[in-house]
Amino acid sequence: MRQSQLFGKTSKTKEAAAASINHELLVRAGFVDQLMAGVYSYLPLGWRVLDRISDIVREEMDAVGGLEVSLPALHPKENWEKTGRWGSLDILFKTKSQTKTEYALGPTHEEVIVPLAKKHIASYRDLPGYWYQIQVKFRDELRAKAGLLRGREFLMKDLYSFHTSAQDLKEYYEQMKDAYLKVFKRCKLDAIVTEASGGSFTKEYSHEFQVETKNGEDLIFRCSCGMVRNKEIVPDLKDGGACPECGKAVEAVKSIEVGNIFDLGKKFSKDFNLKFTDEDGKEKEVIIGCYGIGISRLMGSIVEIHNDKQGIIWPKEVSPFKYHLVSLGDDEKVYKQSERVYNDLVKKDKEVLWDDRREESNAEKLADADLIGISTRLVISPKLGDKIEVKERDSKNSKLVSAKEL
Amino acid sequence: MRQSQLFGKTSKTKEAAAASINHELLVRAGFVDQLMAGVYSYLPLGWRVLDRISDIVREEMDAVGGLEVSLPALHPKENWEKTGRWGSLDILFKTKSQTKTEYALGPTHEEVIVPLAKKHIASYRDLPGYWYQIQVKFRDELRAKAGLLRGREFLMKDLYSFHTSAQDLKEYYEQMKDAYLKVFKRCKLDAIVTEASGGSFTKEYSHEFQVETKNGEDLIFRCSCGMVRNKEIVPDLKDGGACPECGKAVEAVKSIEVGNIFDLGKKFSKDFNLKFTDEDGKEKEVIIGCYGIGISRLMGSIVEIHNDKQGIIWPKEVSPFKYHLVSLGDDEKVYKQSERVYNDLVKKDKEVLWDDRREESNAEKLADADLIGISTRLVISPKLGDKIEVKERDSKNSKLVSAKEL
Repeated sequence: MRQSQLFGKTSKTKEAAAASINHELLVRAGFVDQLMAGVYSYLPLGWRVLDRISDIVREEMDAVGGLEVSLPALHPKENWEKTGRWGSLDILFKTKSQTKTEYALGPTHEEVIVPLAKKHIASYRDLPGYWYQIQVKFRDELRAKAGLLRGREFLMKDLYSFHTSAQDLKEYYEQMKDAYLKVFKRCKLDAIVTEASGGSFTKEYSHEFQVETKNGEDLIFRCSCGMVRNKEIVPDLKDGGACPECGKAVEAVKSIEVGNIFDLGKKFSKDFNLKFTDEDGKEKEVIIGCYGIGISRLMGSIVEIHNDKQGIIWPKEVSPFKYHLVSLGDDEKVYKQSERVYNDLVKKDKEVLWDDRREESNAEKLADADLIGISTRLVISPKLGDKIEVKERDSKNSKLVSAKEL
Repeated sequence: MRQSQLFGKTSKTKEAAAASINHELLVRAGFVDQLMAGVYSYLPLGWRVLDRISDIVREEMDAVGGLEVSLPALHPKENWEKTGRWGSLDILFKTKSQTKTEYALGPTHEEVIVPLAKKHIASYRDLPGYWYQIQVKFRDELRAKAGLLRGREFLMKDLYSFHTSAQDLKEYYEQMKDAYLKVFKRCKLDAIVTEASGGSFTKEYSHEFQVETKNGEDLIFRCSCGMVRNKEIVPDLKDGGACPECGKAVEAVKSIEVGNIFDLGKKFSKDFNLKFTDEDGKEKEVIIGCYGIGISRLMGSIVEIHNDKQGIIWPKEVSPFKYHLVSLGDDEKVYKQSERVYNDLVKKDKEVLWDDRREESNAEKLADADLIGISTRLVISPKLGDKIEVKERDSKNSKLVSAKEL
């Protein structure tokens, strides 16, 4: 793509009271636009990153047997009454038709997937089932101030697993932990598996995936014995306090949550009377697990972790383009050479953002490349002759190569 | 994918009062599930088709310079008040936060894209711009009874184009007509460009893309002189009446609309004061065009057109899988051979649904294959020896080939 034709401009001015690093950098670099608190538009650069992240998540979910579906955002009120959450969940957005029928706007999808599963599951032979979607969620958060980390509308992957027994769920739950760690590793995030409460979704146990960062809004405690817990389930614990498992001193760490997994037990099966006939001929309730990753939240988290004073540093797998080709100076020869390199790379299916702008200074172009943060920068300049300078965004070193070597 | 592990079962029983062919076939074949009137869940087969259609639309939009973005569904009330549509659009769903802030649920996105464009467009050098998204829309339709053809929640591609002059818009508008015809051709739909009213969106002209079918909910008139108009703009015309262009007898044709394009003129630029500085140094209002294709509606339309008594007949480009491999009988040899063929095809990146079910009869399996309608069926059976029977869903003929030839 030619940068002269890109939708979304970079901005040098920092917001006076930027809510968070990810908001500030993603807005300034032209990835997103804030429509209102907690609600963002994704511009072409931002949309490409979301798409990269979605693809990684898809691959890892498919690898553990997930089947992709897509469920609606409009939910019948009755379903939410059946689970007791119509009146109790304060983050639930509601709407009404012209004929006064009330709907919930899905903040999560147990109320849709469980009745749907009921149409599919009759016998133990129909189990297990692993169904996921990448879809927009609505949550009426009172404080939506952390950029993409806490949205009122956001893109989420949610997978629901259906099992004949608690043991079968447990095995899949462990498989999913590994799948999640693979996702975060590919996004260059060092995620720590953390014990947490079930939140409003379940009374059973849950695990969060937390990434250490001094700007994190969560607090977790970890111990050399392997214990890691969210403060919400160990409210009296303090930094240096005694580990509830081994008694050694724990470390308090600020972090952001990038995913969570829940054992929902029989809660929703009971609400919707979801049963199966087991091998022994008896009717039993289906055991359900639920596994979430906020795709847009993950994009924000990556920016929180991977940045420097100059801008974003995208890990290769989620970089909006493979190469940022920057043409310096106003020498016509440079643009001719750049166009050749650009066309060659595009022909080889490499994704390139070409800064072909003529009115910007060299300093502005290089500053923009650092701000946007594409993982590999290629510079063509009269000073370099026929050579191309290759520099990784996360390194200070560069090397010169010929077009052919590239 | 192994059919034994597919989520979504086929059903032999026809609904007593199925609203439409596309609803009945898509539900029975396990592509979608109706959550409530006008609101559907997409099961793995259905989601794959939507994805295929989205990719076709994406390719054709990219080919005319479109840049993909993604805009929110939650819109600020103020924006809808500025265009005068907050109170006047009866299909507008509304919701409210805990703090009583009101939002619209986007039925279309002029109210978001135009203020966003305002941040990007200052000079004629920033124009033209072509931005599109494939995103979920919400419309509170009173009658949502035609399956995927008229949804309360549906997937839509909407592109907005921004121009310095009416002439520049007109040229792009004609390019877009061709792009639309390419999309429909790839979906094996014979779309007729039809003059229509601007609807509630514009007072300027618009064109619809209509596909002839006896179950269509629209009525259009066409003449051998080339005139094609929707009844809504020629309300007094009747079948055999005089063509308003040439006086010859017109033909009345029932049809379904699969896309529409609008010249929005300056309506929204005026509402949001979207201006640019032209080459002559003068401030002018931006001219806007809008181009919609309902992705889920298109899926429904394809089924309305491409079906027979046995089920759906997917055109190759949108078929959920390239091959439907059906193993007949309960001979272990057949399943061994099938597994080899399945693995070979998957290794070659061919997408295959393998009917590996052991409990269904041959007749049930073949009936399911016809109902699901994957474009090419491969049968392995003890009767065929080592050969594989290849049959296109839209043909009565089949041929025998070896695994190698395949």
